Amino acid sequence: MKPAICEQFGIDFPLFAFSHCRDVVAAVTNAGGFGVLGGTAYTPAQLDQELAWIDDQVGGKPYGVDLIVPATYEGKGEKLTADDLAGRIPQTARDYVAEVLAAHGIEVEQARMGGASLSGNTGRELLDVAMSHPIKLIANALGVPPDYMIEAGKRHGVPVAALVGAKEHAVKQVHAGVDVIVAQGTEAGGHCGEVTTMVLIPEVLEALAAIGSDIPVLAAGGIVTGRQMAAAVAMGAAGAWTGSVWLTTEEAETAPHTVQKFLAATSRDTIRSAGRTGKPARQLKSDWTDAWLPQEGGQKPLPLPLQSMIAEPVIRRIDVLAAQGHPGAQALATYFVGQGVGLMNKVKPAREVVREFIEDYLAAAERLTNSLPD
Amino acid sequence: MKPAICEQFGIDFPLFAFSHCRDVVAAVTNAGGFGVLGGTAYTPAQLDQELAWIDDQVGGKPYGVDLIVPATYEGKGEKLTADDLAGRIPQTARDYVAEVLAAHGIEVEQARMGGASLSGNTGRELLDVAMSHPIKLIANALGVPPDYMIEAGKRHGVPVAALVGAKEHAVKQVHAGVDVIVAQGTEAGGHCGEVTTMVLIPEVLEALAAIGSDIPVLAAGGIVTGRQMAAAVAMGAAGAWTGSVWLTTEEAETAPHTVQKFLAATSRDTIRSAGRTGKPARQLKSDWTDAWLPQEGGQKPLPLPLQSMIAEPVIRRIDVLAAQGHPGAQALATYFVGQGVGLMNKVKPAREVVREFIEDYLAAAERLTNSLPD
Repeated sequence: MKPAICEQFGIDFPLFAFSHCRDVVAAVTNAGGFGVLGGTAYTPAQLDQELAWIDDQVGGKPYGVDLIVPATYEGKGEKLTADDLAGRIPQTARDYVAEVLAAHGIEVEQARMGGASLSGNTGRELLDVAMSHPIKLIANALGVPPDYMIEAGKRHGVPVAALVGAKEHAVKQVHAGVDVIVAQGTEAGGHCGEVTTMVLIPEVLEALAAIGSDIPVLAAGGIVTGRQMAAAVAMGAAGAWTGSVWLTTEEAETAPHTVQKFLAATSRDTIRSAGRTGKPARQLKSDWTDAWLPQEGGQKPLPLPLQSMIAEPVIRRIDVLAAQGHPGAQALATYFVGQGVGLMNKVKPAREVVREFIEDYLAAAERLTNSLPD
Repeated sequence: MKPAICEQFGIDFPLFAFSHCRDVVAAVTNAGGFGVLGGTAYTPAQLDQELAWIDDQVGGKPYGVDLIVPATYEGKGEKLTADDLAGRIPQTARDYVAEVLAAHGIEVEQARMGGASLSGNTGRELLDVAMSHPIKLIANALGVPPDYMIEAGKRHGVPVAALVGAKEHAVKQVHAGVDVIVAQGTEAGGHCGEVTTMVLIPEVLEALAAIGSDIPVLAAGGIVTGRQMAAAVAMGAAGAWTGSVWLTTEEAETAPHTVQKFLAATSRDTIRSAGRTGKPARQLKSDWTDAWLPQEGGQKPLPLPLQSMIAEPVIRRIDVLAAQGHPGAQALATYFVGQGVGLMNKVKPAREVVREFIEDYLAAAERLTNSLPD
């Protein structure tokens, strides 16, 4: 008999793979796992094209889409244009960023700081595009999904997943109507809370049981091997939600110098910093993360989305220069990745990663069985 | 067949229980686990008395002792008296502590700040006392054990364990000659590193395998249930090293108001702060931890052992006042405990905790087995 989560999603192995790269999504789905495309960076038209490509590749096998539609951020609920928001960025913050860059031999026009932002409208359009494809899961990566996402999920029969970093948030999500909880520990790449996966999984499961909910809880945060996934399932998780491990697959579009940084990094080369988006997110330590709290002497980041607006255009420029070998840019370059980066030591095809996960998972289960008294 | 770790230590279940309370140590050992007495706070004569009591209780069953002999701290290697060290505490630090206390309606004479310290000589004397009892493990909680500990272990045939929070430290410890590694994640109470248990265990095991070492690795950090212990064993740990969970047992000498704080706390009520000892240690958040970095606006703590010297006498006073119901003291009171405190919801006998661990461990193993495809 298949585990319930495999029956529910029509998969062989409950390994969920979040990636911004459609090739990874298709490869994982085709290998018996469940690929999830991170869709936020796309325009609606681009997302449509990516999903059409995936549809062609997977031949009806299940995959999902992940969007970031945060519940609260600066300017939400007000009718604000991007310019209005940009106007809320203090001049001192622009000056500080210019100073950090100058110290690394980089100049970025201040006019370019203030570009990227998170727009509620785009989120809704991306959702509509996603729902026009045969997706089997829609996930919201930050905060409680807006009502229209929950409603669209119900209307299209697509389960809605939400990422949480604390048991209180899991309870709130269940009350809001989500179908799957992704409980993500502090070791995760990108936005994350303070609680570690080892504590969060049992804490969330206990909190959900206390309100009579038995919806599936996927474990996320630091999981880059089958033995860690087995650990999460032993604790009661239905499966694993992974992200970082796909960044060093052959299919990923990760820049070569970033791949090299990942392969060389240990778990301690990451830091939970709000220096990119205004909310704490784990990433590689660099001179950029050193420039912001909690690093000693660092500046306090602006709130979401103002910090993104100031940081992302600059970081895009840094990435371009770093790829060209600019030493200041290479010292500043950072990238969202979890502590599991310490266990990522080789570039492999995504299919191979799935295969190794399964083997390692089976070996871990055997190890635990062998530890039992006769 | 028993697992190797159970054969090696003559136990039924590889649950190692660190406690400052002899009753917990004896209860765990008598229940088939392995009790470890935290011995650093005792004088040599007191430790001798505690261990004699344990010897009487356990009737030859195995237990161990844990000491803190840090490899490096302010003044180590120099011939310094406590007064010399106290003289290195800046007046500004004394003034700051006095200010924090005054804001909470508490006065402590500055002369009393500067009492507690870690003395290398006491460590050696405690070790001699420990080795005069039939202990089956000696552990060093901070840094590489001094040569004389490794040598004493060999001479007496007592395995030496060392706590580490990073794979590099594990490798260093093996080269120094330790027999057991306790790999302790950032979720642990007391001194801890940055890496979470979920990532640290496989990272340490991989690093030890790379240098050809197969010594047992015990998992520590956040483990307060059998399912978490099973998770660690699935990842390759030989067993679990626990601390926090014993603080709310009936046998523990934890003050009643502290027990109430623990039962009410969630995992997010802890923080990794250097405000008590000068090295990052996880504890309950309070106005005291708020007064020090990394909390915003907090002061930078002094290095070890100067911060302990200034903080511990003050915290002892705070604990006394807090127990009497002083509101300022209750806001300041803190206590070393891990994120697992979020799962500690009931006072139980230590024997009962061991029994529940075993049951929960078995259920977790069954859960993992049931997740396997036929």
